[in-house]
Amino acid sequence: MDFTSERRLDDGVREREFTLGEIPGILWTSEAASEPVPLILLGHPGGVGRMYPRLVARAQRCVALGYAAATIELPGSGDRPRLADVDQARADLRRAVQAGEPVGDDIVERLILPLVDQGVPEWRATLDALLALPEIDGPVGFAGGVIAIAVRLAVVEPRIAAATLFAGSYVPRSMFDDARQVTIPLLVLLQWDDEGNDRQLALDLFDAFGSKEKTLHANMGGHTGVPQFEGDDGDRFFGRHLK
Amino acid sequence: MDFTSERRLDDGVREREFTLGEIPGILWTSEAASEPVPLILLGHPGGVGRMYPRLVARAQRCVALGYAAATIELPGSGDRPRLADVDQARADLRRAVQAGEPVGDDIVERLILPLVDQGVPEWRATLDALLALPEIDGPVGFAGGVIAIAVRLAVVEPRIAAATLFAGSYVPRSMFDDARQVTIPLLVLLQWDDEGNDRQLALDLFDAFGSKEKTLHANMGGHTGVPQFEGDDGDRFFGRHLK
Repeated sequence: MDFTSERRLDDGVREREFTLGEIPGILWTSEAASEPVPLILLGHPGGVGRMYPRLVARAQRCVALGYAAATIELPGSGDRPRLADVDQARADLRRAVQAGEPVGDDIVERLILPLVDQGVPEWRATLDALLALPEIDGPVGFAGGVIAIAVRLAVVEPRIAAATLFAGSYVPRSMFDDARQVTIPLLVLLQWDDEGNDRQLALDLFDAFGSKEKTLHANMGGHTGVPQFEGDDGDRFFGRHLK
Repeated sequence: MDFTSERRLDDGVREREFTLGEIPGILWTSEAASEPVPLILLGHPGGVGRMYPRLVARAQRCVALGYAAATIELPGSGDRPRLADVDQARADLRRAVQAGEPVGDDIVERLILPLVDQGVPEWRATLDALLALPEIDGPVGFAGGVIAIAVRLAVVEPRIAAATLFAGSYVPRSMFDDARQVTIPLLVLLQWDDEGNDRQLALDLFDAFGSKEKTLHANMGGHTGVPQFEGDDGDRFFGRHLK
């Protein structure tokens, strides 16, 4: 992990950009922390630059609550080399949604599985590097982003202690076996009237999770209209499981 | 409204039993309050005596947060005259559930509609009497209980400003028209693995509500296993809408 830049934000937050091999990422920590703190990995739909305003707001909130926060770019997004097959699948999905057609599982698999297969090991390598830093120990939470990545990560990565999932992207039916193997506490957010999403698939996925503590929060407001109070609920969820 | 007994609980809570005509009820207020406070009506499945330990705990919590709290007995429950047709429907429902048969809508209608038709005007009359007391003004919240009663009350009673609903009892499909007319903020609790309930009906009902702000919280733990943190979430919901 090579730190490539550093700056100081408001509220005593230290922001460091890094690269891990070819993968760019950002780490946010408190300048004031004297002891190692738990870590929250911030998921996103891809495109760290485009998502930066929202990511930094989430990160500042994490740091204010006593966590470190970090994110990495997704495979094929931002400045990383494109994944032609994934781009094609994304275009196919958009066309199906716009035409009001059902989104075939083949499209979902072509879009999501490469991101999972390549992205999950990248998150794990990032976790290795972050947990080697003296300012971070654990436990580790995963918050939001491509839900299929979070699901697979929750299965294969024992250092993830709890996760908030945003049911705002597709999950291949073939990954329901992964979902059944998840046992960590989950808070699943579903925008009930999200036009670009499959509500029944999200409900079936929630049902499939093997976790004894799993909570679904459904709200109105469309894909981008998650109510502000859900941020507080997420904070309390991580407060229960990471502190 | 005739007060029939009064006692002082811990934490400065004043508990008064009352009757409103034939209907027994309980009012909890703070001894310390110097100004009129908002009111939360505490719903329950019927049987105030049997439910008292849980009701008084909820009431003490309400009073600590700056509300008055009140409840009344349901038609046909507790010491009130039995409703033979409702008792028969309840027995039919139990038999169907135990036999693993689908619960027919005719059973649900025979069980629920009499409670709604008789109970809702009783809650409204209680509200008239409570809001005439100098220690209570408004707004008014409704919390839990027979969900069909809360739904009808939310439609016909403009003084109800917000409601937390427990999707733990049946609602006749004929009442979905009521649900579509509900416009107040709702927090709907669903126990995902509630064996004695119809999950799909609860999801369809949540979908039907006309409210712009409606939130569904689904958890594991069976009918009686609502997690403790949901109490905090309910407090915050009423805090946003009644204060």
